[in-house]
Amino acid sequence: MRPTEGRPDRPKRRGAGWPQPLSEVDEEEVLRRIFPNLRTGPSVLIGPGDDAAVVIQPSGSVVATTDTMVRGQDWHDEWSDAHDVGSKLVTQNLADIAAMGAVATGLLVTLAADPQLPLGWAVDFADGVADTAAWDGVPVVGGDLSSAGAGTVMVSITALGDLQGRRPVLRSGARVGDVVAVHGSLGESGGGLELYLAGERPTRWASVHEALAAAEVDRARDHLMWVHRTPTCSVSSGPLAADRGATAMIDLSDGLARDAARIGRASGVCLQLSRSRLVADFVEDTPLEMALGAQRALHHVLTGGEEHSLLATFPADCPLITQQTDPDVHWWVIGEVVAATPDGAHVTLDGEPVSGGWDHFSG
Amino acid sequence: MRPTEGRPDRPKRRGAGWPQPLSEVDEEEVLRRIFPNLRTGPSVLIGPGDDAAVVIQPSGSVVATTDTMVRGQDWHDEWSDAHDVGSKLVTQNLADIAAMGAVATGLLVTLAADPQLPLGWAVDFADGVADTAAWDGVPVVGGDLSSAGAGTVMVSITALGDLQGRRPVLRSGARVGDVVAVHGSLGESGGGLELYLAGERPTRWASVHEALAAAEVDRARDHLMWVHRTPTCSVSSGPLAADRGATAMIDLSDGLARDAARIGRASGVCLQLSRSRLVADFVEDTPLEMALGAQRALHHVLTGGEEHSLLATFPADCPLITQQTDPDVHWWVIGEVVAATPDGAHVTLDGEPVSGGWDHFSG
Repeated sequence: MRPTEGRPDRPKRRGAGWPQPLSEVDEEEVLRRIFPNLRTGPSVLIGPGDDAAVVIQPSGSVVATTDTMVRGQDWHDEWSDAHDVGSKLVTQNLADIAAMGAVATGLLVTLAADPQLPLGWAVDFADGVADTAAWDGVPVVGGDLSSAGAGTVMVSITALGDLQGRRPVLRSGARVGDVVAVHGSLGESGGGLELYLAGERPTRWASVHEALAAAEVDRARDHLMWVHRTPTCSVSSGPLAADRGATAMIDLSDGLARDAARIGRASGVCLQLSRSRLVADFVEDTPLEMALGAQRALHHVLTGGEEHSLLATFPADCPLITQQTDPDVHWWVIGEVVAATPDGAHVTLDGEPVSGGWDHFSG
Repeated sequence: MRPTEGRPDRPKRRGAGWPQPLSEVDEEEVLRRIFPNLRTGPSVLIGPGDDAAVVIQPSGSVVATTDTMVRGQDWHDEWSDAHDVGSKLVTQNLADIAAMGAVATGLLVTLAADPQLPLGWAVDFADGVADTAAWDGVPVVGGDLSSAGAGTVMVSITALGDLQGRRPVLRSGARVGDVVAVHGSLGESGGGLELYLAGERPTRWASVHEALAAAEVDRARDHLMWVHRTPTCSVSSGPLAADRGATAMIDLSDGLARDAARIGRASGVCLQLSRSRLVADFVEDTPLEMALGAQRALHHVLTGGEEHSLLATFPADCPLITQQTDPDVHWWVIGEVVAATPDGAHVTLDGEPVSGGWDHFSG
């Protein structure tokens, strides 16, 4: 079983004291409430408050990605609070920057909301963004506030990054003979979603002592739901993998099968995944298996979205893979790169084509 | 009266042939329909299709801004088609880059929509983005597609820019004794909005001949409604003003009074606007006056939003202002920078405080 990554303590919510709707607060007052918690840094020449931000890009290029979440589509208020949403949105974007082998240099954050949204929600969302960004040392450099129709809340981030002299690691670089490896978890967010959809809710432990004494299966369920609400990405692992020779890399946002196929298709190869390795490393004796059983666990390992772990290919003799001395940067070998098969499958499990994953419009 | 800027011919709409909803089209198929029209350029190392884009930033820094539009809030389908919306969204963002004195290097484009939105709308929106971006030579380098609730359509752009070695022109650099000047129009978008709200609609001319023969007032109304749907920004004027010594600059998105006050507040000064200059250059014998009369015209000149002209301050002896030899880069002097008044007004009209403008949540 993989080592469980440490997480920061859950921060306090500031927003509860501000139930008034955004429409009753001057726009610049909203910004004043939000900005004090948005840290800046020496790389930010011009931060929030002018027409645009200016951020130093030492490499002479900028890596840029954008990702959006919509209430009712990408989160449900009964499951996720505003801080969770801000945190997850940052993770999604930082994972994309890491998957290029880059280090994030700044975030631009957009909130488009029904004017009846409580100010406190906006403040907690901004704090979720700020806390998670600060955890990875990334400044918030700008953003936009817009009004939207009744009930609509839409949040979006653009992340900027710098390659620090590296070549970007693309989806198209996998070569026959490479190994396929994952950094981070698989399927936990999908497992958490299954639990939420089944009506389960996290336990409200009265104390840490009570939580530690709880049945392992209850802690496993809580863990999966936690990962679904606030997945994490070990963002420094992306640039490190790039430095150590990763040939292709992608952020696992739409499920292993779908994202592996993207590398396979872009590289003109097939990623042959090993069922026994996936089961040994991501199913057996994991929270997923404990909470949902081995069969559902493997399903989520293969198709669960929003995990934001990194999937990469490496030369088979790459020391990062063959030596694995540091548990913090462990890459789990889950398969190998083979020639594309005549029937066009770009990802297989023990040689059989697999598919499945998330499509934004057809669901 | 200001010279009317040339506009490109209205491009063809591709979307009419695709009435099917997004939910019936594979997400990657949507992207395939959209991307062929999104041009790239030599500065784009990695364009759309990987985890993130990579864009060359010769100055070693990136200028970044983001702006969002929501259906029903920022446009109405009965007034604006998808191409108009894409075009306006690009202009809003490029104006912010220009107002820093920078040249745009790339755009990231987000569409979050009800899955019932016709594919054709998405294609026409992307074409509106691509056509307007191409007009200014700016590549579209990435973006995001998301589903949203019933009826919701939300579009967002992040624009990236490079200072080409210039210092950014901030809101905070205005000095007592500077002149206040505008490049572009004032109040036309606000005037067009008033006409739309009053139930007016642009004339559908049967031919160019018929349009040229129409009454001047009808052409004036059409012009204002056109500017409201698709404002333009002469983006090269921002970097040029920076090169020639502009001390402060802002994009006029929320109205002259409100945006001038932002420069005044950030600089600790007062921008004293001249009514006679505003009337002579932006009211008398203009489409605004013809369509709405002198009083409403001056109202829109002072408070009309979404114009996306540039407001800047310059040293009084700046040759760009004193010589004005090139009509394409004409800056209209509309006032001067004076010491902030004891009562705290940061913008005055002939010495009297003025206010008004657009707030996103309170309207």
